Amino acid sequence: MRSKSFEGMVCPIAGVMSAIGDRWGMIVLRDLVLGLHRYDDFRRSSGITHATLSDRLKHLESNDLIERRPYQDHPERWEYFLTRRGRRVASILPVIAQIGDELGMAGSSTSPMAFVHRETGADVHWTFVDKASGAHLDLEDLAVREGPGADELVRWRLAHAKQRQKGSACAGSESTKSGRTSK
Amino acid sequence: MRSKSFEGMVCPIAGVMSAIGDRWGMIVLRDLVLGLHRYDDFRRSSGITHATLSDRLKHLESNDLIERRPYQDHPERWEYFLTRRGRRVASILPVIAQIGDELGMAGSSTSPMAFVHRETGADVHWTFVDKASGAHLDLEDLAVREGPGADELVRWRLAHAKQRQKGSACAGSESTKSGRTSK
Repeated sequence: MRSKSFEGMVCPIAGVMSAIGDRWGMIVLRDLVLGLHRYDDFRRSSGITHATLSDRLKHLESNDLIERRPYQDHPERWEYFLTRRGRRVASILPVIAQIGDELGMAGSSTSPMAFVHRETGADVHWTFVDKASGAHLDLEDLAVREGPGADELVRWRLAHAKQRQKGSACAGSESTKSGRTSK
Repeated sequence: MRSKSFEGMVCPIAGVMSAIGDRWGMIVLRDLVLGLHRYDDFRRSSGITHATLSDRLKHLESNDLIERRPYQDHPERWEYFLTRRGRRVASILPVIAQIGDELGMAGSSTSPMAFVHRETGADVHWTFVDKASGAHLDLEDLAVREGPGADELVRWRLAHAKQRQKGSACAGSESTKSGRTSK
């Protein structure tokens, strides 16, 4: 299920997805963000099997996204919590939830849940922000720049994509503008 | 690999993750965002096997995240592009990339790539925004509110999490403040 074939990839997306493991790992993170912490609660919340849940909890723990704390001795029982690192990774969940809601992918005709400001109850959305101007941006406004940690494959990928740029799905009608891959 | 067990879940996160399929689906979306479009380019970019790539392309297409267009007749060859829906879903990729970079999960000591404003080259980051005040927020500032589309399981999940609130990993020292689950 969680193949090792992502090992050695120089890519922050592959790194995060490897640490989460798979969709079930994502669902466990969701339940932790929502405030569930116990094995039986995860089971009830998602219908996940014992084998899968047990495996994903171990995987998330070994990747330092969650930690467990005992809450009962006889028999031994644990509660699971997001680590600092896990909370940062789990920040993608409200982003995914908002997109899924917008696109009608929630499995219900209206939104089953929404993220709000915990103190004021105000609606919250997510956006890309231009650090220089503060402007809010969409995916279409973004380009990718090679970083100092790029390996040969990353460099090939970006150079090759630039060659193919004319047909880029992200570029659309803007594809010939300069600055798209400016360094 | 891509089990059907997510079917029937009322959850926008489960919906999006089902449509993407798995980590390999995410990697194909990444390559499309970066500007690759051809089967052989996906293969080279990720080292994905023929069987997996072929399956994930079909899965992404059947979920209306990508579409294919012919670019050669003999033999027949296709290029793949993000649909409008696919571009919106793929917006999570720069978010995941930024988090992976921050946490040193990119598989390199420094950042292999960065998303920038395509016209100005300015650095871009993502954030949650309070719709009322415009303030930038973190996961810790958010709470979940039940929506009109909530089913019995969503209501149980949120109510049960509220009971467990004292130990919430997201709540931290703020956990007793009012308004966290305000509707």
